[in-house]
Amino acid sequence: MDITKFVNLSLGRWRSQRSAHHLAFSHFEAVTSTIDIVPLNPEDADVVNLCKSYDIDPTMACNPFRMSWAGESDWDDDETFEGTTILVPIPDPENPKAGRLLRDRGYAETIPSVGQYYFNDDDNFVLLTAYDRATAEEKIWFVNPNFRLRVSLIKTSEGTGVVTASFSSEIRDLSAKD
Amino acid sequence: MDITKFVNLSLGRWRSQRSAHHLAFSHFEAVTSTIDIVPLNPEDADVVNLCKSYDIDPTMACNPFRMSWAGESDWDDDETFEGTTILVPIPDPENPKAGRLLRDRGYAETIPSVGQYYFNDDDNFVLLTAYDRATAEEKIWFVNPNFRLRVSLIKTSEGTGVVTASFSSEIRDLSAKD
Repeated sequence: MDITKFVNLSLGRWRSQRSAHHLAFSHFEAVTSTIDIVPLNPEDADVVNLCKSYDIDPTMACNPFRMSWAGESDWDDDETFEGTTILVPIPDPENPKAGRLLRDRGYAETIPSVGQYYFNDDDNFVLLTAYDRATAEEKIWFVNPNFRLRVSLIKTSEGTGVVTASFSSEIRDLSAKD
Repeated sequence: MDITKFVNLSLGRWRSQRSAHHLAFSHFEAVTSTIDIVPLNPEDADVVNLCKSYDIDPTMACNPFRMSWAGESDWDDDETFEGTTILVPIPDPENPKAGRLLRDRGYAETIPSVGQYYFNDDDNFVLLTAYDRATAEEKIWFVNPNFRLRVSLIKTSEGTGVVTASFSSEIRDLSAKD
């Protein structure tokens, strides 16, 4: 597995079920959403600007994409939410199994972020991101091309305590494939 | 990581939050339970008998243990449940990172089972078990010595469709440590 294969497998529309475990008070949150992942042109102005904001040569970007989501949580009395972010992988020139991932809106905090990723020998994509007040650890893997799983942890910024552990099961929406 | 370290890390009492995603109808199930993992003597009659039932030399057993659980699910109108099973690792003599795991009561079906396990390079314990009517795939890893995660998949027996995807976050109950 490498980032090109991984992004290509991820493209499309996904129906997601996510459970968040808020550990301090043993709360379960259930989230249902639709996620759209579409490829971006590496020369797209947003991609180029995001690279430049991190002093990264935009020609190092590989398979940039946009991820958008819309859904509802049982936490907020079924209020709906939606969002979108650009993600730009920057593979390590010396190791095709690792690199950096730029986002214009982070997972733990809604500010630009840069994380470190690698693929383990089980083809899991593992992403570590340090924010101001938290660190996030995400693991994403494909059970088959139409079904993927994602485990996300939010830790305190020292990386010690885990605050929230989330699990998403994502089924490809084949009806969107036309 | 090897099976001895993994079992030793697992011993104790755990407070578990489990979310099951029943995929066919996008149902969320929330389960709260207490899990106790206690070591067994390799010469324990139940351990020896379980080995013999699979024609395995009982002296190959390594770190056998008993796992018991009690809890409640929001699926069955908060009815409580409980259970117990003996687990007997049989490491592969040629590969300390892999082996078989015998149970006297399986995860997908409540009958004896034998699964194949291995540790990946992220120290995840991965267990694959084939039952009569289903296959189960479990992945367990420690975020720190007092916090572990478990992802379990139940697939159809052909191993194609995923029926249920579950996620457990397990916090060690330090108050039980005396």
